[in-house]
Amino acid sequence: MSDSRPLITLTTDFGYADTYVAEMKGVILSIAPDVQLVDVTHAIPPQEVRSAALAVAQAIRAFPPKTVHIVVVDPGVGSDRALLAVEAAGQRFLSPDNGALTEVIDNDSSARLHRLTEPSFWRHPVSPTFHGRDILAPVAAHWILGRDLADFGPEVSASTVVRLDMPRSVRGESGAQGQVVRVDSFGNLVTNIARADLPAVEPQRLVVSIFAESAVGLCQYYAERPVGSLVALLGSHGRVEIGVNQGSAAMRLNASPGAPVSVTVGR
Amino acid sequence: MSDSRPLITLTTDFGYADTYVAEMKGVILSIAPDVQLVDVTHAIPPQEVRSAALAVAQAIRAFPPKTVHIVVVDPGVGSDRALLAVEAAGQRFLSPDNGALTEVIDNDSSARLHRLTEPSFWRHPVSPTFHGRDILAPVAAHWILGRDLADFGPEVSASTVVRLDMPRSVRGESGAQGQVVRVDSFGNLVTNIARADLPAVEPQRLVVSIFAESAVGLCQYYAERPVGSLVALLGSHGRVEIGVNQGSAAMRLNASPGAPVSVTVGR
Amino acid sequence: MSDSRPLITLTTDFGYADTYVAEMKGVILSIAPDVQLVDVTHAIPPQEVRSAALAVAQAIRAFPPKTVHIVVVDPGVGSDRALLAVEAAGQRFLSPDNGALTEVIDNDSSARLHRLTEPSFWRHPVSPTFHGRDILAPVAAHWILGRDLADFGPEVSASTVVRLDMPRSVRGESGAQGQVVRVDSFGNLVTNIARADLPAVEPQRLVVSIFAESAVGLCQYYAERPVGSLVALLGSHGRVEIGVNQGSAAMRLNASPGAPVSVTVGR
Repeated sequence: MSDSRPLITLTTDFGYADTYVAEMKGVILSIAPDVQLVDVTHAIPPQEVRSAALAVAQAIRAFPPKTVHIVVVDPGVGSDRALLAVEAAGQRFLSPDNGALTEVIDNDSSARLHRLTEPSFWRHPVSPTFHGRDILAPVAAHWILGRDLADFGPEVSASTVVRLDMPRSVRGESGAQGQVVRVDSFGNLVTNIARADLPAVEPQRLVVSIFAESAVGLCQYYAERPVGSLVALLGSHGRVEIGVNQGSAAMRLNASPGAPVSVTVGR
Repeated sequence: MSDSRPLITLTTDFGYADTYVAEMKGVILSIAPDVQLVDVTHAIPPQEVRSAALAVAQAIRAFPPKTVHIVVVDPGVGSDRALLAVEAAGQRFLSPDNGALTEVIDNDSSARLHRLTEPSFWRHPVSPTFHGRDILAPVAAHWILGRDLADFGPEVSASTVVRLDMPRSVRGESGAQGQVVRVDSFGNLVTNIARADLPAVEPQRLVVSIFAESAVGLCQYYAERPVGSLVALLGSHGRVEIGVNQGSAAMRLNASPGAPVSVTVGR
Repeated sequence: MSDSRPLITLTTDFGYADTYVAEMKGVILSIAPDVQLVDVTHAIPPQEVRSAALAVAQAIRAFPPKTVHIVVVDPGVGSDRALLAVEAAGQRFLSPDNGALTEVIDNDSSARLHRLTEPSFWRHPVSPTFHGRDILAPVAAHWILGRDLADFGPEVSASTVVRLDMPRSVRGESGAQGQVVRVDSFGNLVTNIARADLPAVEPQRLVVSIFAESAVGLCQYYAERPVGSLVALLGSHGRVEIGVNQGSAAMRLNASPGAPVSVTVGR
């Protein structure tokens, strides 16, 4: 078995009802028929670039080096917003220049960024409303087949591209303040408070509070508390997460992204 | 990298909750383990053959020659309706004979059509309620492995198969009359009015009207108009499309397939 | 074309909006880049192990020998519940020990079962809340690459693992009693009454009853009855199924899993 089978992932807000995702795959496979394709998700809420930025940052850690990740959440399609190819953290990214790669670029100071300006790699005629299919998909295929980043257009500086103001947690004397950044399909509330933000005491002494409720003690897993109880733990991406054992914390607390969360030390 | 990796797509009304799609893939891969599988969509509304016909016609242009497209929207499964294998436009199609291939057949006067009658290529016993798994899937696998269309059953004439009466646009003296044929997941209204139907004036002079509203000027892309404004443009498949920049035209206009649309020349 | 391309399927309750499924795929492809991945479904209702058990039992018959099926519906993740690798019916399975493999184990008295205890095959650090990504996915990849079941941990007896009490049909003198076990996306009601449970008379004499309604005669396919009529037939997995031609039996009868169904002989 080869250890070099090329791998391309797709993250979009196209949903599962339309043919748009399949069209991108058709274009990729027309050029690179042997590529392995993986859907990250196509259920990014329409035009919510921030959700895409979080999804991509979270997913890529599980992928092998040189994977090409295409991210298409593109409310500005057709306008003069740029399209970017980025090498960062050993992986590769293609996206409109709208902030979807914020986390990726911010986390690697040696990231290489290029604008896509070389039309010989594109599918023609280019539809002004579907650059994902006509520009990003064929560029991904050519990249995975061995073209260098520099072939696709000129280098740009990280300081010149759009970056979103991602909510950061604050570490204070009495603990950490952050917020819910994502609600998963189980209703678990994923926050932006990382392990390193936590006060250095035994996990059992930590108190995680949201609205008027608190979970005392940071657990290892959901089933550690009785069914229906609020549970706080470090989730599978190393962030504080609030759940309900076999239930939905989002529904019980009526919480959504932006809800403030604090972690303090109990008595 | 080989340039001949076989490619099969699937378009169904099976949804994403049941195991039906996976069963078709299991049958295909049991026969042709190296095939590349692509889902076009499984969210065709139950038994809406017309939606499948539109989806397939739209998706195939992005796929390489010889791709096999399986289309299963099959309210008549088990009855004496035929099953078809079709070569058209350089690609290949398998579907119940119920009109799902109307556009494909109508657009290629040299299409080759055969009925599937040769049971040696089928999975046995054939379930009377799942021909997709037991007939179309194994035939797709054998076809992609090199069998000829004629091996699967006798040729039939295009005039003898079911074709749907697809709504056509009308080009008159004062402009084009058509209708909404599809609403995508962004709420964009895709019509059946093609570029060739448009009056030969500058795009800025065209007026696209639906119900009591009009968009003046054919844009290139959604973001050309202010957020929340109605936008008319030529969509990514070359048809007039009505959208709302960063919003849903379907919700704003309460429009669905069948809604009449006209394109006229403004003053 | 090789006849030995490795094949791994995934069945989860992760839904399609989160990145969890993609992360599992990324881990698998990091180890076994050439594997063929098939989604069975990710729409198992959250933590409904019984639904997963039914889905897996149903899907596997369409897959080739040695396929590895990963099943992750895991309300007890992180607790001391075991993780299992099972060889049964010529295929291979990975799942938490929670009953998701009940049908698979019950149907093959020579099934081989091992507990996963050998951490050298896992991804580290192992998240206590995502064993699917950090234990099952990498073990699946190593298994498909040629490792033996026994490498992953010690053998256990089928009598020591969790098995669900799956509803069984009862065959009496006057007919068969069973229940709805699954509602598919068309609204068809799939029961647990198998062909072998049916009274040995001509199918036309059988009467299938649910609530106060009956369908007289077992049909071959839905379209055998007028549009909108109740239809009973043997579904594509050999179980009695109640549908409505071009409609939803679930909506018309307001029926869900657990609803009692009987098959008797009419006059």
